Amino acid sequence: MIKGQSKASESKLLLLSQEEADRRLAKLRAAMHGLGMEYGLITGNSNKYYLTGRVFLGSILVTPSSITYYVRRPVELEGENVVYFRKPEDISVDFPSIALELDELSYNQVIRLTKVFHDDRPGNLSAALRITRAVKTAEEIGMIEGSGVLQDSVYRKIPGLYEQGMSDIELQIEIERASRLEGCLGQFRISGDSMELFMGNVLAGDNADSPSPYDFAMGGAGIDPSIPVGADGTLIKRGMSVMVDVNGNYTGYMTDMTRVFRAGKVSELAEKAHRTSIDIHRLLQSAAKPGTLASDLYNMALELVRERDLESYYMGHRQHAGFIGHGVGIEINELPVIAPRSKDIVAKHNVIALEPKFVIPGTGAVGIENTYVVEGDGMRCVTHAPEEMIDLF
Amino acid sequence: MIKGQSKASESKLLLLSQEEADRRLAKLRAAMHGLGMEYGLITGNSNKYYLTGRVFLGSILVTPSSITYYVRRPVELEGENVVYFRKPEDISVDFPSIALELDELSYNQVIRLTKVFHDDRPGNLSAALRITRAVKTAEEIGMIEGSGVLQDSVYRKIPGLYEQGMSDIELQIEIERASRLEGCLGQFRISGDSMELFMGNVLAGDNADSPSPYDFAMGGAGIDPSIPVGADGTLIKRGMSVMVDVNGNYTGYMTDMTRVFRAGKVSELAEKAHRTSIDIHRLLQSAAKPGTLASDLYNMALELVRERDLESYYMGHRQHAGFIGHGVGIEINELPVIAPRSKDIVAKHNVIALEPKFVIPGTGAVGIENTYVVEGDGMRCVTHAPEEMIDLF
Repeated sequence: MIKGQSKASESKLLLLSQEEADRRLAKLRAAMHGLGMEYGLITGNSNKYYLTGRVFLGSILVTPSSITYYVRRPVELEGENVVYFRKPEDISVDFPSIALELDELSYNQVIRLTKVFHDDRPGNLSAALRITRAVKTAEEIGMIEGSGVLQDSVYRKIPGLYEQGMSDIELQIEIERASRLEGCLGQFRISGDSMELFMGNVLAGDNADSPSPYDFAMGGAGIDPSIPVGADGTLIKRGMSVMVDVNGNYTGYMTDMTRVFRAGKVSELAEKAHRTSIDIHRLLQSAAKPGTLASDLYNMALELVRERDLESYYMGHRQHAGFIGHGVGIEINELPVIAPRSKDIVAKHNVIALEPKFVIPGTGAVGIENTYVVEGDGMRCVTHAPEEMIDLF
Repeated sequence: MIKGQSKASESKLLLLSQEEADRRLAKLRAAMHGLGMEYGLITGNSNKYYLTGRVFLGSILVTPSSITYYVRRPVELEGENVVYFRKPEDISVDFPSIALELDELSYNQVIRLTKVFHDDRPGNLSAALRITRAVKTAEEIGMIEGSGVLQDSVYRKIPGLYEQGMSDIELQIEIERASRLEGCLGQFRISGDSMELFMGNVLAGDNADSPSPYDFAMGGAGIDPSIPVGADGTLIKRGMSVMVDVNGNYTGYMTDMTRVFRAGKVSELAEKAHRTSIDIHRLLQSAAKPGTLASDLYNMALELVRERDLESYYMGHRQHAGFIGHGVGIEINELPVIAPRSKDIVAKHNVIALEPKFVIPGTGAVGIENTYVVEGDGMRCVTHAPEEMIDLF
């Protein structure tokens, strides 16, 4: 159930052990070095959380020989190299160059920082952080596994949450509540422009085929055009599939899991497609070894889909998604990306959410999503709810 | 209760009436003109929603004589000036200069667009949009009023949601569920770097005094250091105040409302501070006429707080917030800002959330927040739940 008082109220800034903090910093320095960067300022919440185990308002300055935590809020944090400051201009430095999170920080924020650091061509620290965070430490994997256990527990409760006559959104609200009572933190961290989502999606019947502006695997019209994604108030009726893809962020690290619930008997085509999704999981689970090209995994899955003559339903019907998997951790869209033109290479201790899905007109969305840890000989699954379609009634 | 099928599934891109769309565009053009901009590209979701009534992946190009909707997703949208495109480079243009959302777009995104538009010193369209959106149209005000009615209805249910032995987070989860069942869209739109929040906050007892990194009026330690804000698992006990500030986004436009629930009898100091908050509301409600300086409103409130000898509890105790009110609409932090160094001037049809609050050690947070529409003779309240402290038990 829900955890008690948060570690955030501790006065120590660093909530990671010193060893773990050093390990992550060393990985970041290596990635920066590989990209020709020596000095970097980290400002994004996800990246500060990665390096310290907490979120604060301020920045972290990394040099080849030092790390300094510039804090504005909260008050009263303590620790080595903690400096309270009011504004970036208070950071007095003299470096040959600086790297900044150019994919996350706003243009105006970067312009301001380039003046502080007297460097009008900053390096892209976002790239170094993405590379660093793609390969998880043992502690991070433990937290992801922790989220998986709790998300499993919620998913197993879903058939018991359904009541006759419910709409998709009514079922979703009960799943949200069950998730929150299990300790789900709610907040869905996603990077990238124009991406937003509340607490995951429940898609019933043909709403799964409603095209959405967002770059998620599935769509849905939503209940209001201001947030056009997900459940749209569809009454759950016999013959529909109900796809549940609700946030697994229980520990600061996320798992991503999708399961399908069946309202009575669904079409044979839907059953076949669901079976194919599970088969793709087994295929890629053993194929995704360190060194494998992410694009090869994509193509391997597509080949199986074509063999079974399911391509027009694959990753959407009216509108198709361009990827079937993505890294997951502090944010829902980390590296590697499993897509046709991805340049990513699978590495040991990547954590990958794989989601080969189908939309079958007249039935709805089918297929599963699991989160995996890449080990030496393939991928180990950390989301364990039953994979077959589960009877809602 | 929850709305049915969303208008987002309509094939018409423009979900506003043509008159309303034209009205908003004319306002934006006037604001751009005032800032010396003639050509602008709008990419942010909130701003696209403002101009069209829907969110899509793509951009809107505004010139002195035209508006073009460049759409990437969803597929199948129709209408005048709708152009499907794959990437910004497909926009073929020849303008003397371009304005972009420099406060919202990432540095790398802007750099890419400056190449498309052959202008390496883009104007800041974010400023023009903030000014435009600060003054609401009648239709926008109607949507805000609509959110207010539903949020009121949820707040009135709160005492009935409390059960003996609940913690702050358990009560929050029931309020979240009641909100969602009333049609709350969940997603909390907030602009500005490093700002994030799930679905509002419930603060019980001394957790209200836990400093948070986020620039909200109140803090709280949260249940996990990855999102250190809000409820922290505090058991609700006799003598505590429980402050509820949960999202009011029911229509694409938000209201922001805070009420305080009393667990038995609370301290006299807490009662006095709560009374003072209500008095500040009445004072500023009549003082905030078009033309008033936002900073004058801030100072007027502070004067009353000082007269009553409550300054050390005002807007936090261990850590103090620097503002007592903010514009609200599509996002939770619009203009004007009611703060000591604010340069904003109150205008007719601004919508302002006013939240003079106090933290009383040993009791918790007190004070209320209402959302107001600025009319010719002061502010009209659109959040109507009872303002006095309400008995939880």
